[in-house]
Amino acid sequence: MSAANSIRIDLPDWVAGFERQLPESLETAEERMAVAISLAEQNVRHDTGGPFGALVVTEEGGQVVALGVNRVELQLCSAAHAEIVALSLAQRRMGSWNLAATPLGELQLVTSCEPCAMCLGAIPWSGVRSLLCGATKADAEAAGFDEGARSADWVEVLMRRGIDVRTRILREQAARVMERYTGSGRTVYNP
Amino acid sequence: MSAANSIRIDLPDWVAGFERQLPESLETAEERMAVAISLAEQNVRHDTGGPFGALVVTEEGGQVVALGVNRVELQLCSAAHAEIVALSLAQRRMGSWNLAATPLGELQLVTSCEPCAMCLGAIPWSGVRSLLCGATKADAEAAGFDEGARSADWVEVLMRRGIDVRTRILREQAARVMERYTGSGRTVYNP
Repeated sequence: MSAANSIRIDLPDWVAGFERQLPESLETAEERMAVAISLAEQNVRHDTGGPFGALVVTEEGGQVVALGVNRVELQLCSAAHAEIVALSLAQRRMGSWNLAATPLGELQLVTSCEPCAMCLGAIPWSGVRSLLCGATKADAEAAGFDEGARSADWVEVLMRRGIDVRTRILREQAARVMERYTGSGRTVYNP
Repeated sequence: MSAANSIRIDLPDWVAGFERQLPESLETAEERMAVAISLAEQNVRHDTGGPFGALVVTEEGGQVVALGVNRVELQLCSAAHAEIVALSLAQRRMGSWNLAATPLGELQLVTSCEPCAMCLGAIPWSGVRSLLCGATKADAEAAGFDEGARSADWVEVLMRRGIDVRTRILREQAARVMERYTGSGRTVYNP
């Protein structure tokens, strides 16, 4: 057995250039979602992972804190979903495991598709105060993806923890990225 | 904003020596759980994270594939629970995001405490075929930890996905590590 005792997940090289070209501020929910969808599209186009993108922004003003894309296959890590990558990078950049305790005020997670059971469970631990989603669980499943055992009242569960949720932001556009991916015969990994 | 585009989670230095001293094979559920509990204890004793330990072993023969401990606070990552760390390291060591497709046969996750909602969601994506747990959700909550919104039928949910579950292995011993941690006035982090 190898002695490797560290896990490393890198964003693909193209993401740094993508980030530099973003506007200073993403004011509306739709502007924020367009970035998440664009990350998902670019991730497929560059062949650097699955059709999922996410970002962490400040609720006020929409300043980008970190970006994320799905990195499961290339980084050999089934937990490397776009949401986990964006949240973990945001925490690293802010120097805190708790995104509720940064100088930037309340932070928001924006994701191109409603979170799977794992990412849903990760959201309350992260410290974000709100969530914006694009495509729905039904869209993901229609495209062949497995979202896991997410309870029907997941929105209420997050709301009760003080995390505001809005979903179906640019839904059709977000769903199309997943459809095109599976329609092109790409792998939909599942153990 | 920093340009950092990678996430890194390291095991504490003491883990390499701990791993070298383990027997070649951990035959019984109790032997495997004793290792998970010992990881949790050592993690607290060395002040390298919360009172949680996990490991991935081969179902047949109990050969250790990877170890994990909670690294949330020191590695600035709310997803760095012991289970996620052990699964991700096992995947890295095996060179595959899918632990159902390694030359070692079926793999098992052993964890000192029943998984929180995030780790529960992560298990089906990882490719492990079975789960052994020590302390229960009630034990974790009694010690002040939040397990998140885990459905009451979580065992059946995993079983339906072909993942066998056994819990309450060395339960009292496993619960005691969490109790002692919170009893000593250590941080129980929650955003």
